[in-house]
Amino acid sequence: MPAKLRDNAYGKSRVRLTKVVRRVGMQELFEMSVDVVLWGDFADSYLAGDNTKLIATDSMKNTVYVLAKEREFDSIDAFSFEVAAHFLETYPQVAGVSVSIEQTGWQRITVGGAPHTHAFVAGGGERRTCQATLARDESGATRIGGIKDLMVLKTAGSEFSKFVEDRFRTLADARERVFATSIDAEWALRAQPEDFNGLYDRARAALLETFATHHSLSVQQTLMAMGEAVLSACPDVGSVGLSLPNKHRIPFDLRPFKLENRNEIFVPTDEPYGLITGTVTRE
Amino acid sequence: MPAKLRDNAYGKSRVRLTKVVRRVGMQELFEMSVDVVLWGDFADSYLAGDNTKLIATDSMKNTVYVLAKEREFDSIDAFSFEVAAHFLETYPQVAGVSVSIEQTGWQRITVGGAPHTHAFVAGGGERRTCQATLARDESGATRIGGIKDLMVLKTAGSEFSKFVEDRFRTLADARERVFATSIDAEWALRAQPEDFNGLYDRARAALLETFATHHSLSVQQTLMAMGEAVLSACPDVGSVGLSLPNKHRIPFDLRPFKLENRNEIFVPTDEPYGLITGTVTRE
Amino acid sequence: MPAKLRDNAYGKSRVRLTKVVRRVGMQELFEMSVDVVLWGDFADSYLAGDNTKLIATDSMKNTVYVLAKEREFDSIDAFSFEVAAHFLETYPQVAGVSVSIEQTGWQRITVGGAPHTHAFVAGGGERRTCQATLARDESGATRIGGIKDLMVLKTAGSEFSKFVEDRFRTLADARERVFATSIDAEWALRAQPEDFNGLYDRARAALLETFATHHSLSVQQTLMAMGEAVLSACPDVGSVGLSLPNKHRIPFDLRPFKLENRNEIFVPTDEPYGLITGTVTRE
Amino acid sequence: MPAKLRDNAYGKSRVRLTKVVRRVGMQELFEMSVDVVLWGDFADSYLAGDNTKLIATDSMKNTVYVLAKEREFDSIDAFSFEVAAHFLETYPQVAGVSVSIEQTGWQRITVGGAPHTHAFVAGGGERRTCQATLARDESGATRIGGIKDLMVLKTAGSEFSKFVEDRFRTLADARERVFATSIDAEWALRAQPEDFNGLYDRARAALLETFATHHSLSVQQTLMAMGEAVLSACPDVGSVGLSLPNKHRIPFDLRPFKLENRNEIFVPTDEPYGLITGTVTRE
Repeated sequence: MPAKLRDNAYGKSRVRLTKVVRRVGMQELFEMSVDVVLWGDFADSYLAGDNTKLIATDSMKNTVYVLAKEREFDSIDAFSFEVAAHFLETYPQVAGVSVSIEQTGWQRITVGGAPHTHAFVAGGGERRTCQATLARDESGATRIGGIKDLMVLKTAGSEFSKFVEDRFRTLADARERVFATSIDAEWALRAQPEDFNGLYDRARAALLETFATHHSLSVQQTLMAMGEAVLSACPDVGSVGLSLPNKHRIPFDLRPFKLENRNEIFVPTDEPYGLITGTVTRE
Repeated sequence: MPAKLRDNAYGKSRVRLTKVVRRVGMQELFEMSVDVVLWGDFADSYLAGDNTKLIATDSMKNTVYVLAKEREFDSIDAFSFEVAAHFLETYPQVAGVSVSIEQTGWQRITVGGAPHTHAFVAGGGERRTCQATLARDESGATRIGGIKDLMVLKTAGSEFSKFVEDRFRTLADARERVFATSIDAEWALRAQPEDFNGLYDRARAALLETFATHHSLSVQQTLMAMGEAVLSACPDVGSVGLSLPNKHRIPFDLRPFKLENRNEIFVPTDEPYGLITGTVTRE
Repeated sequence: MPAKLRDNAYGKSRVRLTKVVRRVGMQELFEMSVDVVLWGDFADSYLAGDNTKLIATDSMKNTVYVLAKEREFDSIDAFSFEVAAHFLETYPQVAGVSVSIEQTGWQRITVGGAPHTHAFVAGGGERRTCQATLARDESGATRIGGIKDLMVLKTAGSEFSKFVEDRFRTLADARERVFATSIDAEWALRAQPEDFNGLYDRARAALLETFATHHSLSVQQTLMAMGEAVLSACPDVGSVGLSLPNKHRIPFDLRPFKLENRNEIFVPTDEPYGLITGTVTRE
Repeated sequence: MPAKLRDNAYGKSRVRLTKVVRRVGMQELFEMSVDVVLWGDFADSYLAGDNTKLIATDSMKNTVYVLAKEREFDSIDAFSFEVAAHFLETYPQVAGVSVSIEQTGWQRITVGGAPHTHAFVAGGGERRTCQATLARDESGATRIGGIKDLMVLKTAGSEFSKFVEDRFRTLADARERVFATSIDAEWALRAQPEDFNGLYDRARAALLETFATHHSLSVQQTLMAMGEAVLSACPDVGSVGLSLPNKHRIPFDLRPFKLENRNEIFVPTDEPYGLITGTVTRE
């Protein structure tokens, strides 16, 4: 039967890595999961089982560990670029490469009021992310930073009202509701920042402070405000993509028990959830 | 600060639904999870908190249950189209809509050699999927069917050798290896099939039989063969996208124990995993 | 401070293992996860960091793979006993050992109407389980077989009514409800069965058929009927412990939409869930 | 067939609850998941489908929300006792009850250097736990506090050596290894503390500080030290049960790449894992 291969890509996912930098005094800890994707001149393997040009995904995995050893870096953003550049420079059959990293946060344990030199406790559930994409024709070079699963909740300062009223609506207008979400944000860089870690800290703080202080008329409006806040705090960022699942806290109906629920007692739910997305850019 | 909203969309995810069709003799069971995404004239909510045109995601959820009651359907593919068309036809502010469904499989319990009329046991871990996307300007209308998490494994008939040899390679050539993967496939329809359920059954059988009988020189080659097999079995399918994670079974090193591992004893692993993707189309 | 160690145990969990038996014609496949727990004379390691008597959990892991290679077995029940006996016989400091195994099911792919010799597709989500516990003083020797996560659902033949009526009740009597559960069962053997695989098949069939055909007045009553059915089908079983989470399918309220829900449209939920447990023994 | 019901219990699991206490100035937030288990005179439902004495698990769920509204409490420990006492006092057919709660941590978002009055960000992945068990004959009354999934890691100060050397050992002695674990601890109270929250904070700090500063010769030894530290910090605690999975960080073998791994580059793994358990009591 006449068939053809329209597009293809392959790589290694979930390469988990711990790197300890054993400085005198303070030891540094990086824990991350790395995904590598390659595209290019690999059709022979798909069409004929000819693997001559194929870099084994096992070799990709080895490469991540070897480069983690050989290169010094102070951010996952820097490391993702090193890995991506390595693949593009080393293998002529690679047309493009994307390296994505998720970092799990560790905080130093406090002992006697001071941060410990080499003992850590897991931070919040959120992960710092980044992605470096490089292509041989330069067109596709992008650097992205981000954060995933940053869970936040506010018990006041959130309304939702005056939306479409028709046969399918049963939800009442709410002047005060619990607003909980798990922030996923990705910011595309328009310039190389001097300090990737500082940029991350400013972007994270902008997201949290805006969530806390913005009086919300809709999740959509809060998304826009968060995007603007990141752009404002980070001059090197060109645009911000946000995805905000509405993790509903549903008021429990206390009327059958002759009680009034004064916005106190809720059922936290995971599904279904509203999902609000948008990308905010500079003018 | 001058910022603007570049793109936006919103919807409801994980609307879980059980529908029982209580026919005399045999009762039918559908269990599914529905995701609805809308885009269109919704910027006022993002920019000004004006929700006048916003259909609440809670109303979307209600709509799914109401349509599940009012409409008769015999496949999730048919139902996804009904839901998508409803949103486009009902709300002029909607420019486009995408409805994705995952169906969990239930098989009738066998009692006395015969399938039971109303008792079911969960099938394999795989889920049938579909997606109907409709846009007001017709350009974007697509119908997709698919399958997720179809776990397969073969203990023979799989090689991987003669790939790139360099500093980063430690993996030896393998003339016989265990090949395990979790098939994710999506097929784009080029014509309306008479029978969505028959098409699904033929596509699933083509994937399984090809996996079993194709002598594999690489996961890439097997992917191509699977795509061709689905196209061959299903004339209404125009192209097939496949994603095949290589769920490695790593030979356990028995040499320290003075034993030889004759391709018998393996460590099944979840991570890291190779990930091979490609799209196969008709010429 | 005066403190003491009251009890202790340690072991290795989630030792995942694939064994392929390469017979001519048909290849056999076992995939399992093994947990080993030891107790005995290990207090020196807790109290003084003296590891002289400690068998490293890494060595336990090695042992599982080595024994999987060296021993022939046709069931996880047989293998769990071999592993347990090995630890008790090899190390005098071990007072007792428990080996628990979960097996993931694989079914042969059908090609041309016949089961394939070496290609498999994942079975249902359930896992077969077993546990062998041996103690040096013989008192504690037990053999247990079981099944986990066997998801079943019936759309008729289930009632729940006339339960306690008081201030906290809002649930109405139900003459017909959807009954969905995920069966966890463990059967303690009172005699060594000739055929562990046959016993498992009979127990599983007894659970499924009873679920399908028993007219249920409560989950509790169905639990009792299932336990009796396993005892009846398996003379070597002395008692059956069952745990049945009530995976509620909640009728969706269609009245706001001027529709009647004739027991057709439900919301499947994961939480909260009722949890009904009990142990059924011979008189 | 002659069968009998040996033991039985039932209840409601995963009752998720958010309570907001709207004080002027600072709003308080509790989020928890509650499990209720009852035992007593319920055999009629198992044996005859007679539900007269059965409290529906749906009513249990309602009870949790109603009591959360009606009662004031400042800790999950206090609330678990209120719920348990309610069931024992209200229903004569209840012989005993156990109420277990897991609390998810929320921390106030910092805005302008100060904690916000009503906006929160998720804390670490750990959960605070408690369990109140009450029986009509008083014998079984126990109060337990605890913590789950407190992830910690140290990059120095951990050895493991001189363990059993035999055919199954391949692990070398380690003078310096990464030690990562996810602490699960439960402390049984011997007296009613004045302040449950203070006790929890002291126990958590004792666990973290001991992990950081104790020079570890084995996970077992660290477990003992942690248990002693909790007993020392909390006079109201009578015993501490600990479960410490060894979340191995395995040194990546860099020798094939002509590099030396000076304890820098590791593969973090989830399975298999060593599991070390023990209970530490007062003399």
